[in-house]
Amino acid sequence: MTDLHQRIASSFKAQGLMATLGARLALVQDGEVRIELPFSAALSQQHGYVHAGAITSVVDSACGYAALTRGPAGCEVVTAEFKTNFVRPAIGERFIAVGRVVNAGRQLAVVTGEVLAHTADGAEPKLVALMQATMVYVQPR
Amino acid sequence: MTDLHQRIASSFKAQGLMATLGARLALVQDGEVRIELPFSAALSQQHGYVHAGAITSVVDSACGYAALTRGPAGCEVVTAEFKTNFVRPAIGERFIAVGRVVNAGRQLAVVTGEVLAHTADGAEPKLVALMQATMVYVQPR
Amino acid sequence: MTDLHQRIASSFKAQGLMATLGARLALVQDGEVRIELPFSAALSQQHGYVHAGAITSVVDSACGYAALTRGPAGCEVVTAEFKTNFVRPAIGERFIAVGRVVNAGRQLAVVTGEVLAHTADGAEPKLVALMQATMVYVQPR
Amino acid sequence: MTDLHQRIASSFKAQGLMATLGARLALVQDGEVRIELPFSAALSQQHGYVHAGAITSVVDSACGYAALTRGPAGCEVVTAEFKTNFVRPAIGERFIAVGRVVNAGRQLAVVTGEVLAHTADGAEPKLVALMQATMVYVQPR
Repeated sequence: MTDLHQRIASSFKAQGLMATLGARLALVQDGEVRIELPFSAALSQQHGYVHAGAITSVVDSACGYAALTRGPAGCEVVTAEFKTNFVRPAIGERFIAVGRVVNAGRQLAVVTGEVLAHTADGAEPKLVALMQATMVYVQPR
Repeated sequence: MTDLHQRIASSFKAQGLMATLGARLALVQDGEVRIELPFSAALSQQHGYVHAGAITSVVDSACGYAALTRGPAGCEVVTAEFKTNFVRPAIGERFIAVGRVVNAGRQLAVVTGEVLAHTADGAEPKLVALMQATMVYVQPR
Repeated sequence: MTDLHQRIASSFKAQGLMATLGARLALVQDGEVRIELPFSAALSQQHGYVHAGAITSVVDSACGYAALTRGPAGCEVVTAEFKTNFVRPAIGERFIAVGRVVNAGRQLAVVTGEVLAHTADGAEPKLVALMQATMVYVQPR
Repeated sequence: MTDLHQRIASSFKAQGLMATLGARLALVQDGEVRIELPFSAALSQQHGYVHAGAITSVVDSACGYAALTRGPAGCEVVTAEFKTNFVRPAIGERFIAVGRVVNAGRQLAVVTGEVLAHTADGAEPKLVALMQATMVYVQPR
């Protein structure tokens, strides 16, 4: 585990929401971070699928940490804004949220994210949501 | 309580995520719905503020139900997409998410949302997040 | 005309695209800027309505200049990103794009925009497009 | 030239704005459309770069036509909404806007777009803008 991986793992553990949702940090590499979210009825919207907000929460965290892998030394990341399209209902056994850096400047990073649904039958994962986000690098005070 | 209010309250109760987050349906009126979210450490990001994803979850639900108040009879609403700007850290005792319909067509509704932070000292609520969303009306199968 | 108004009017004149589209600076006040765009077939999409891109161009400029009215002294503004919903076809004699600052920080401003269509018959103007944008303050080099 | 290519070329010619901007249809294939925009001072913002609105106009058209290549027979496409991030100043000799379909349903398509700047020195093209859009399929009346 690299220093950056350790730092992101430690930050991830400090996110109360990730524990509440049951999410798990799955991959950290240069420019890309993945978070896994197992299905739970505690995450549902009114039809029993996973709520757009839970899906967005994990892909936002994946995008923020992806930006962090390309940020200035010692900086932190906050979300300026994101936009998410929901492509199909979030039906599956577990969901993988992937954040990938498109461009990292000194102040801002542009990041894209996607969420893939994995089903119990081992079928090809299906795209559930697509995110385009702006992250801000901030120096800790 | 009107029929529409009852229908929305019943749908809200069926959203596992709203219970998991501790959210409460606060207001239903024509073209506007409000959801209240008390602060909890279980909703935090790594600095202890409420996570952008929890904020987005409640304002997405508020926007969806606002759209429902203007939809064709018997229809349901799903989120096609949303975009959220985070204006300042989500610090507060409780948060009020407000969804308001801008335009409702036959297929799509455009809705705006905002989330206001209320602090224990009773100061003027502060804007935390701003959403612009597209909701789709679907006929239940 | 205030100094700020003069500075914005001068910047507006330097925008080749605004002249190409036939747009005119209509109002500058603290936190709000308006740009007028008369209808022209030179701005059309394939059905003869004004193209979403022309509508977006004027409301982007209005949002950027609105942000400038609240920026640090001597700074300039560039668009980090925007999101636009198109509420109905852009049919009208002229269009008024309004940009309004929601929140201006030191680095970033969040701005909302709308475009209203005015018809020859003097009917109530109709909302054509809704924008939510992030502007960055930059110091000129 | 296929039927679909002819239909798109004919629709493109009917877009007054594309002629006004000097844009040219460069590629039509299943799920992807490209539009070329040569630099012109007539497209500039106040610093002489190409205006975000001109960049958005061509990538919006590319995204709309990309959606059309996957739409139901005889349908047309209108833009419901788009979101664009501007990654760096639009400096170049010419710009290539690429629209690619991510998912096409019966009513809506999710499309991503990018704009690449080509410089006179033949250097590697650079990403200028990134779009994520929702297109609506409509039956002509």
